[in-house]
Amino acid sequence: MAGFGDRVAEHVDRRRSQLVLGLDPDPARLWPRAIELVAGSPGGPAERAGRAVAAHCRLVIEAAGDRCVAVKPQFACFERLGAPGWAALAEVVGDAAERGLLVIGDGKRGDIDISARAYAQSLFGWVDTPFGPVPGLGVDAATVNPLLGRDSLAPFVEAARSRSAGLFVLARTSNPGAADIQDRALAAGGTVSDALARMIDELGLPGTGARGLADVGAVTGATAPERLEALRELMPRAVLLLPGIGPQGGTGLELAPAFAPGPAGGLVSASRAIVNAHLAESAASRDPAMAAADEAARLRELLWGLYS
Amino acid sequence: MAGFGDRVAEHVDRRRSQLVLGLDPDPARLWPRAIELVAGSPGGPAERAGRAVAAHCRLVIEAAGDRCVAVKPQFACFERLGAPGWAALAEVVGDAAERGLLVIGDGKRGDIDISARAYAQSLFGWVDTPFGPVPGLGVDAATVNPLLGRDSLAPFVEAARSRSAGLFVLARTSNPGAADIQDRALAAGGTVSDALARMIDELGLPGTGARGLADVGAVTGATAPERLEALRELMPRAVLLLPGIGPQGGTGLELAPAFAPGPAGGLVSASRAIVNAHLAESAASRDPAMAAADEAARLRELLWGLYS
Repeated sequence: MAGFGDRVAEHVDRRRSQLVLGLDPDPARLWPRAIELVAGSPGGPAERAGRAVAAHCRLVIEAAGDRCVAVKPQFACFERLGAPGWAALAEVVGDAAERGLLVIGDGKRGDIDISARAYAQSLFGWVDTPFGPVPGLGVDAATVNPLLGRDSLAPFVEAARSRSAGLFVLARTSNPGAADIQDRALAAGGTVSDALARMIDELGLPGTGARGLADVGAVTGATAPERLEALRELMPRAVLLLPGIGPQGGTGLELAPAFAPGPAGGLVSASRAIVNAHLAESAASRDPAMAAADEAARLRELLWGLYS
Repeated sequence: MAGFGDRVAEHVDRRRSQLVLGLDPDPARLWPRAIELVAGSPGGPAERAGRAVAAHCRLVIEAAGDRCVAVKPQFACFERLGAPGWAALAEVVGDAAERGLLVIGDGKRGDIDISARAYAQSLFGWVDTPFGPVPGLGVDAATVNPLLGRDSLAPFVEAARSRSAGLFVLARTSNPGAADIQDRALAAGGTVSDALARMIDELGLPGTGARGLADVGAVTGATAPERLEALRELMPRAVLLLPGIGPQGGTGLELAPAFAPGPAGGLVSASRAIVNAHLAESAASRDPAMAAADEAARLRELLWGLYS
């Protein structure tokens, strides 16, 4: 199997999309159809909510998935439902994979080596037990937090690379608080984010594919084009995962530096913009699925136009 | 109810212990008794391994919990078993709380505000669903990752404080890779870890209790006493969570600065040192429970002696 960089490039080519469908299900704002589907099902609130979340995500994927290259489930939204939430997450991963979408597990995990290995088993591998091996989620990529340094990322890189999966390491997030640590100037020059970017580039170098993309990418909030350009220079081979396009975002032009290595150089995620499109004042349709399909189509086209 | 700082101080006084029982269950190295207990139970490998992990943790808590002030389940070790692992985690939290132990959820979560709120619901609160509210794990404290800055920590602080729970924010971890980012010198002076320590002190200040301890603590690897002393100066009110005491650790004297604010100023965790004590060459007993009880008693006494 090709490495993750090549896989992303092939998926982007084939699906003609750089759009990532963010799945951040809020159990209090599910599509009504999802609640209807599980209405008569047994169990307590957690079990029923877990099933409703899984049904909601399946409907969202059915509506908008064809316009996207990947889905990005936000782990926090699932694990707050406990074990039934984790079961829903596993179901969503399977549903998306069946439809040919890449799955980016957005858990931002990070820990010292032995715990990082356990997280990597959960994401990309399996764990041996006295009752037989237990497989993990089997995602195609995962977001990870690099604060603990290189040796904390190594088990993730190793596990991902061995199965042609990839990582997106936090380099510069899009929230205002990113200024508190990530934007700090270092005595040796550059910022903390720059140091992270260099680490990401080094980690991904041995996993660079024929299409010039590495298997270690970066999460880079697209707040300012000049910053994105600087980060791109430090990580010429990285696939950049750019959160935050949507109603609050700009024209998309600020994303252009992401696509320097080619159309698969940047994957852009949108979640509420698509899932809640029917609630927007300007919505052409009040039907959640139709509005989501329309908005995903619009965003896909906007992004695709940036590159070609 | 008293705030988290006061609760820790009371627990340490009453239990005369600063020892935290780390629960990092490896399904391939469970106590034999745990496997016997679930031998005939139904389900696939994941379900049976989940039950065995829960049984193992219960046996460990029964054996060594009396010598400890808290347990610290490592989330990675549970979530690699999927939904059954998450069910086991919830069970372990309940078992430990029933025995009067504080529970420190070691998940090192961290994300932008809306996702941080979802994680906080999972740890300290509940989430509303169309089928009724679903409660989270209900831990007494959780480890969190501060790379995303203050606004990413605020939802955790708010949720924890509202229920007299607390946080342990990563300040300086014990792994060699901590040098890659955390030890970097900043242009404005100090290191990244120092900047984190200042942020932790500020966040905890409004949550400082009658006993002088804040509800926002710090994870500080006790690798060098002079560094621990410097971090303590920056965080005079923080409860420090110190991982890594055990076979590879020193005499414990390097931990002394942690206890400057009093006996509850430092909580010291040990996991494999206790759980696998029966495998040590010097083990007085080959019975896992007896060896764990002995080793926990030894560590408790060592730590208690440091302060008094």
